[in-house]
Amino acid sequence: MSLSAIAYARQNHPRFLDELKALLRIPSVSTLPEHKDDCRHAAEVLAADLAHIGMENVRLIETEGHPLVYADWLHAVGKPTVLVYGHYDVQPPDPLDEWLSPPFEPTERNGNIYARGAVDDKGQVCAQVKALESLLAADGSLPVNVRVLLEGEEEVGGEGIARFVASKPPELAADFALVSDTEMFAPGLPTLCVGLRGMIYTELEVRGARTDLHSGMYGGAAPNPFIALAQILAHLKDEDGHILIPGFYDDIIPPSPEELAAWRSLPFDEEQYRIAEVGAKQLVGEAGFSVLERTWARPTVDVHGIPGGFTGAGAKTVIPAKAVAKVSMRLVPGMTTAKSFALYKEYVERIAPAGVDVEVRLIHSGDPCLIPVDNPYIQAATRALCEVWGKETVFIRSGGSIPIVGDFARHLGLPSVMMGFGLPDDGLHAPNEKFNLRNFELGIESLIRFLEEVGR
Amino acid sequence: MSLSAIAYARQNHPRFLDELKALLRIPSVSTLPEHKDDCRHAAEVLAADLAHIGMENVRLIETEGHPLVYADWLHAVGKPTVLVYGHYDVQPPDPLDEWLSPPFEPTERNGNIYARGAVDDKGQVCAQVKALESLLAADGSLPVNVRVLLEGEEEVGGEGIARFVASKPPELAADFALVSDTEMFAPGLPTLCVGLRGMIYTELEVRGARTDLHSGMYGGAAPNPFIALAQILAHLKDEDGHILIPGFYDDIIPPSPEELAAWRSLPFDEEQYRIAEVGAKQLVGEAGFSVLERTWARPTVDVHGIPGGFTGAGAKTVIPAKAVAKVSMRLVPGMTTAKSFALYKEYVERIAPAGVDVEVRLIHSGDPCLIPVDNPYIQAATRALCEVWGKETVFIRSGGSIPIVGDFARHLGLPSVMMGFGLPDDGLHAPNEKFNLRNFELGIESLIRFLEEVGR
Repeated sequence: MSLSAIAYARQNHPRFLDELKALLRIPSVSTLPEHKDDCRHAAEVLAADLAHIGMENVRLIETEGHPLVYADWLHAVGKPTVLVYGHYDVQPPDPLDEWLSPPFEPTERNGNIYARGAVDDKGQVCAQVKALESLLAADGSLPVNVRVLLEGEEEVGGEGIARFVASKPPELAADFALVSDTEMFAPGLPTLCVGLRGMIYTELEVRGARTDLHSGMYGGAAPNPFIALAQILAHLKDEDGHILIPGFYDDIIPPSPEELAAWRSLPFDEEQYRIAEVGAKQLVGEAGFSVLERTWARPTVDVHGIPGGFTGAGAKTVIPAKAVAKVSMRLVPGMTTAKSFALYKEYVERIAPAGVDVEVRLIHSGDPCLIPVDNPYIQAATRALCEVWGKETVFIRSGGSIPIVGDFARHLGLPSVMMGFGLPDDGLHAPNEKFNLRNFELGIESLIRFLEEVGR
Repeated sequence: MSLSAIAYARQNHPRFLDELKALLRIPSVSTLPEHKDDCRHAAEVLAADLAHIGMENVRLIETEGHPLVYADWLHAVGKPTVLVYGHYDVQPPDPLDEWLSPPFEPTERNGNIYARGAVDDKGQVCAQVKALESLLAADGSLPVNVRVLLEGEEEVGGEGIARFVASKPPELAADFALVSDTEMFAPGLPTLCVGLRGMIYTELEVRGARTDLHSGMYGGAAPNPFIALAQILAHLKDEDGHILIPGFYDDIIPPSPEELAAWRSLPFDEEQYRIAEVGAKQLVGEAGFSVLERTWARPTVDVHGIPGGFTGAGAKTVIPAKAVAKVSMRLVPGMTTAKSFALYKEYVERIAPAGVDVEVRLIHSGDPCLIPVDNPYIQAATRALCEVWGKETVFIRSGGSIPIVGDFARHLGLPSVMMGFGLPDDGLHAPNEKFNLRNFELGIESLIRFLEEVGR
């Protein structure tokens, strides 16, 4: 049985790739209102594909934002039920001028496919659908019961799916979730992600004068909100990357000594990471913690942009009336979004310089999570990956946030298997995002094997 | 003679206002490439008007940027020659959504005319041209020799006119310059500006990683250029507004005790200024200096905008590869642009945090200047203003920068008479910029009287 599904996948690989390209051509940028129709279009294409391969009860579920895609196949009597999750929305493609090929014209180069969303997450959603297709086509049935739930707002906080999950609908009754939105630790190294950082994404607005003022006339007497904002941002972390918000670290549950030991044995070369992945002259961060600890098990603060003021070419001598910073914080197990946001807000309001008003707005948030590695689905995944890739599976965490994993646990009681096939240099959220074509192929085979293993 | 020129001006005021409106409708934003043709159009309209009223040798003088407008009338044998200066270019109108009427559709409200460029500087240039027209029409001649030189790059550094002036062309041989680009200290209070701050306008670029990175994956290890930039900006001034660049204050020539005493007697209400002009909850700046000293006689640093990164609506979880701040410094007499920029650059490079590269670029600059008040043209201006406004003229400085005033002195040996008719609440460089209609009218009369007084 298993051979035939995998044989089917191998035989149909060129078509699978063409269909992935078609999906990548849809600019389903969830955060930009002008792409609202494109998001729905991507959802409709996936729904049509799920219906075409033999999934049942296929439909779009409306939300206040972009729709969810639902499908199921529930005829594996006595077998577990898996909730397959992925997202069809993508990040904005800017800065556009740094792309070597257009972000929405998928292009093959060096064994990769380049496009916005290639790895995050259309390539991985496509691998899930193609694994289901291969099993249904080769065997006429699935080895387990399957529900598929895809969303179109992962990159903007996932409020629609969060609300749907929180309502505990009967459509989501399952034994575990399969989430393909993570990466492998290194090329060829089968990997399961068992921990995620949480996040609070905020806007910090500083207002000075009532209106924009001439910086010659008023410079030296009128508050400059950009300078005030800089003073606030400069006090969020000290020079060692230690966050200065009082109480921010209090509730952190540190990784166990065993987990830390396992991380130390991972094939990780900090200098290689600095040069090849980050490309900076020096890494930064908290003294006393390794890079993996800093990115997986320590909270951090980042600033994403500072809209407002004069940003055109040339010179405008203005003291802008206001400045806004887009600031996010990553949280780690033990921390909660509610308390972290409250501490941050209180601190910012307290340290705001004289002459300005500050306002802190929460844009979206997701709690951190940690998956126990001794559940049977993680064990089945470990075996399936080992078989396809020929190596022992490693357990890692991710510095990223997938809030839905926490929601699946909290509202539905489901553990998640985070089986993803990205690579560290795939350029998520950046120009020239890519997905490795071999990983697309072996990803499909891994997912086939995994579902078979769970159904055994 | 004088009555008839002023009578002509009063009779023709409605047409003068219509012609000002036509000029204000031309969006001659010098810093935006898409308005290049509009800048030339404004120059051509002014040239045509100068020719029409009887000025001679009217022509556009090409520069690398927007053209200069030249005209002369040199038949007042034995009389002084005045070089009349103004600029036809304007600041960008953004933020557009804060304008009560469109920036390029001049609108009358409450005795003012609202439009971008209304006071800075089209309304004042128009007053100069209309004063010349009134004299020529009423008297058939001018009481002094006049050269007119208008530029279209004042808001972007004025490189074209600076180069032209530095070449000491015979067209600019004159005894003094008349510059109408300043304001009156209070409504109805005749004012001459005798000091200007200088400026260096810079871009400060901070680069971290090679490309934009996912803030979940890399947050805590990759340098964030926005945070690094905030740290640098936060260290340009201390909490009291004192600039922290070593040596920055060393060469300042402070105002004389007499000048400080005169400033103290000006009708200035700090609380009124804070509420009505600035509209901030508190003024800022160096302890131990009055507001007038802080804005006229002390250097300062302002940040105008921070382009780069993610500035759209919603959330994008990216660590941008670079961030840029538009930073300017105002300089006061004694300081030079070259030394001030060198000190700033050296300091920024020294305090840049680990992990990032910084680059400091000079966009444009102008030295500060101070005019002696005992020259005959300042004295004539004082008398003319007193006659038209019925009050003693006050001497003030401006916190703004008009680099050409320094160039006129350095290259042509000309003192400048800065006779302007703006008001403190005119909103230069801001939304809802205005020019008081009574000031437009009395400004024309003041300029007529001044030229007559010089020719006496």
